Amino acid sequence: MPKETGDVVIATLGSHSALQIMHGAKREGFKTLLVVRRDRLEFYREFSHLIDYFIEVDEWRELCSSRVTDRLMELNAILVPHGSFIEYVGLDCLLELEVPIFGSRRLMQVESNIREKMSLLREAGIPTPREYSLDEEFPGPVIVKLPGAKGGRGYFIARDRREVLARLGDLVRKGLLEDESEALVQEFIVGTPAYYHFFYSPIMGRLELMGMDIRYESIVDGLRRLPPELAEGLDPSFVVVGNIPLVLRESLLYKVMEYGRRFVEKAREKTPPGAIGPFSLESIIRDDLSIVVFEFSGRIVAGTNLYMNGSPYSTLYWNEPMSMGRRIAREIRLALDTGRLEDIIA
Amino acid sequence: MPKETGDVVIATLGSHSALQIMHGAKREGFKTLLVVRRDRLEFYREFSHLIDYFIEVDEWRELCSSRVTDRLMELNAILVPHGSFIEYVGLDCLLELEVPIFGSRRLMQVESNIREKMSLLREAGIPTPREYSLDEEFPGPVIVKLPGAKGGRGYFIARDRREVLARLGDLVRKGLLEDESEALVQEFIVGTPAYYHFFYSPIMGRLELMGMDIRYESIVDGLRRLPPELAEGLDPSFVVVGNIPLVLRESLLYKVMEYGRRFVEKAREKTPPGAIGPFSLESIIRDDLSIVVFEFSGRIVAGTNLYMNGSPYSTLYWNEPMSMGRRIAREIRLALDTGRLEDIIA
Amino acid sequence: MPKETGDVVIATLGSHSALQIMHGAKREGFKTLLVVRRDRLEFYREFSHLIDYFIEVDEWRELCSSRVTDRLMELNAILVPHGSFIEYVGLDCLLELEVPIFGSRRLMQVESNIREKMSLLREAGIPTPREYSLDEEFPGPVIVKLPGAKGGRGYFIARDRREVLARLGDLVRKGLLEDESEALVQEFIVGTPAYYHFFYSPIMGRLELMGMDIRYESIVDGLRRLPPELAEGLDPSFVVVGNIPLVLRESLLYKVMEYGRRFVEKAREKTPPGAIGPFSLESIIRDDLSIVVFEFSGRIVAGTNLYMNGSPYSTLYWNEPMSMGRRIAREIRLALDTGRLEDIIA
Repeated sequence: MPKETGDVVIATLGSHSALQIMHGAKREGFKTLLVVRRDRLEFYREFSHLIDYFIEVDEWRELCSSRVTDRLMELNAILVPHGSFIEYVGLDCLLELEVPIFGSRRLMQVESNIREKMSLLREAGIPTPREYSLDEEFPGPVIVKLPGAKGGRGYFIARDRREVLARLGDLVRKGLLEDESEALVQEFIVGTPAYYHFFYSPIMGRLELMGMDIRYESIVDGLRRLPPELAEGLDPSFVVVGNIPLVLRESLLYKVMEYGRRFVEKAREKTPPGAIGPFSLESIIRDDLSIVVFEFSGRIVAGTNLYMNGSPYSTLYWNEPMSMGRRIAREIRLALDTGRLEDIIA
Repeated sequence: MPKETGDVVIATLGSHSALQIMHGAKREGFKTLLVVRRDRLEFYREFSHLIDYFIEVDEWRELCSSRVTDRLMELNAILVPHGSFIEYVGLDCLLELEVPIFGSRRLMQVESNIREKMSLLREAGIPTPREYSLDEEFPGPVIVKLPGAKGGRGYFIARDRREVLARLGDLVRKGLLEDESEALVQEFIVGTPAYYHFFYSPIMGRLELMGMDIRYESIVDGLRRLPPELAEGLDPSFVVVGNIPLVLRESLLYKVMEYGRRFVEKAREKTPPGAIGPFSLESIIRDDLSIVVFEFSGRIVAGTNLYMNGSPYSTLYWNEPMSMGRRIAREIRLALDTGRLEDIIA
Repeated sequence: MPKETGDVVIATLGSHSALQIMHGAKREGFKTLLVVRRDRLEFYREFSHLIDYFIEVDEWRELCSSRVTDRLMELNAILVPHGSFIEYVGLDCLLELEVPIFGSRRLMQVESNIREKMSLLREAGIPTPREYSLDEEFPGPVIVKLPGAKGGRGYFIARDRREVLARLGDLVRKGLLEDESEALVQEFIVGTPAYYHFFYSPIMGRLELMGMDIRYESIVDGLRRLPPELAEGLDPSFVVVGNIPLVLRESLLYKVMEYGRRFVEKAREKTPPGAIGPFSLESIIRDDLSIVVFEFSGRIVAGTNLYMNGSPYSTLYWNEPMSMGRRIAREIRLALDTGRLEDIIA
């Protein structure tokens, strides 16, 4: 195990929040490495002041080839996974990878299964949307999530059971879905979305609220620009293209932190060692100020890119510009300093 | 009267913008104190690096008990009021409290009366929405505000006088309103909302524009996510859950500052000594670039939580991360340094 | 030619992003000057800690009078143009002005002609909306831009060719338009708007992504606050009143940077010396994640006012609070230090 900051290279894949991760690692004095697909190399080279080593690949899955992993091991790399990670390299690669990974592989495994994911939230005592079975009647509207739904794709809103069955049947006929039962049917919660960025520090034994955001989605966030009679003909789509900053009423924060704590505790119990570093709860806030959590992410989320120079909330813990990327690097440094690297590598 | 920063404790209630106020006070070298209801103690304890003293209460109104005020006096506390203050402890408690309060109690008293509030704005020569009497015909749409309307609750939008009368009658019948005439009926201004955060410094004799925001409201800001045919059945509600950052066209700023100045001058004349520290003007901007102010707040607003590390505008005055919370503490420090504490305590 | 920072005064007109430009110049150690219309003087005097010299005018066009230009030349002023510049002083004044201007006058000339502007983008290989001729049938909806359209005024959305012809005919009859053919008819792109702030440094030979924003527009961004049955009667208008911060999915950034690079290269070829300093690409992002650019600005845009203390992206290049205004001043300083002032004055 490496012992000094100078001995460790912080590595990630060239996408999602890679610039933030590289930038944060540099600020904490680490060397950095980016595994990057050839077509994006030119872009990331413009930030070569933040990146010490590049490993070029033709396909992301080459991350799991011995050419790449040998090099990562040789450089004492710690790999920081992000939202594009599983999508790009696959769960099997992530789980079997020899290279040390910052964070919890088991939690990312749970995250990748929509039913296990919702079940972890429910068992933690966090309010979640009701789930319906296709076999019974249920009130509408509902949101229907297909396996592998990602970044706002692969789900739809339906008014009632009849519409759900019709649209799922259509997807099965087109070969886009194996079986109707694979779809998850959730109560559609009416309210405003809000996404919370947490960091759980095993070294400090502390849960930090690092920021929050709203997603900016195409085309739904552009529809309002159309005269109503034009907008009516168009179904909203929800493809995440970016993020907008947000703060919450302080009287809601204690609920948010409570749900964060419950998540950490239940994750420790069900998928030990539990949450390590960044995770996110994704919620709707109703007009009675109740918060319903409909997703979690077991790693850094892209909304943290808003706060490359710190967020309103991270300022409360750290009187220095603390991004999530830097917070990860800080945790690795604290672990190195206290000889506890094994507590943050899972 | 205390003379040194080290002699003074900055205190507030655990809600609204308390974390910002504590954080800002710490940055300016003060000791801090939080009066907090037992059920929120766990939350605020996570920020105990920002809070030197806790006073636990079972009910917020205990702030006015001698147990609490004696302790506050003993510690040389200056109490910083915020938006949940009057709501939590009541106007009578605020007015009679022995403990020194940063800011103007008289202005907060005016703020708590919707008719006096609008009248101060009008007399200052700030454009406000027209007000209608229930006895006469008026054009629609209108916004109807009930006594004690707060954080987006207690008002509704109506299309015409008939709808206003019907809904108010309903509220009276249900015992939710004493008399129809208590409601304030304002012209509904079509345009975009914007909330301006001012700080008036009696010590520097300067008005500062510290930031601005847009409110994030449930469910209205989530409605656009519904397919139009689903959204149509739902009435928007306007419960403030958070805030989103904003900057304005520079050519609008000189109007904003002009209205801020007029407010300071008229408040000095009508409710001497007038505005002290933070206040807010809450406006709609029409598409002819006129600005109509429909509310003010005579103390710190929650939108300032966006700028715990400074705002685009505060940067223009202070080349250091200056939140509203810190600005308050800075003003107290400047007053202490110049022996003018009585000028900021009213 | 001046040689030292202390020898140069950075000047601009009192509007748009003047405070940011003055503030940035001060941070880099320059003296500053503001040409300001008398009715705005009081406002800018509140920032006199940022402004060393004021030149008062009755009309903006006096900028081009010998009284003003002589004074600017005498003080070794470099004038920084912004979005209100051409609008206020006119293109002829800008082109003939003796005073050195930071940036490319030729590019601003192209910007002021909507057809040349779109043609530069197309030739650069940047995806743009299709353009239609009034003589042929075309699919709807379309956006129709009138000559001199500015800040969201002077354009409208129409459903089909018939509506376009009817509304243009109306404008001609009212004398608001000389000829139907002056209008530019563009495909209406359905998606979400996003505005990118670039800085091209001739001294460092580097293109920097300095930030991005969404516009906040009256009344369209307020319409959602109305109950649907009230909103239906109102046509959205799109008058820009402010800006909201945004970050983009990192996997979109490499396209954004690619389009920025193409713009720099084509501008260098078609309007040498090409882009100098700030420019902006203004886009719609579709839900297939394609980006369509419908405008550019050849100078600083008002959305940069969000980032007076640096942006998430500027942090990646500069580990100090780098606004666009400061970046301009930094470039002038770098040019002075290397004796290359002529490379940034065009």
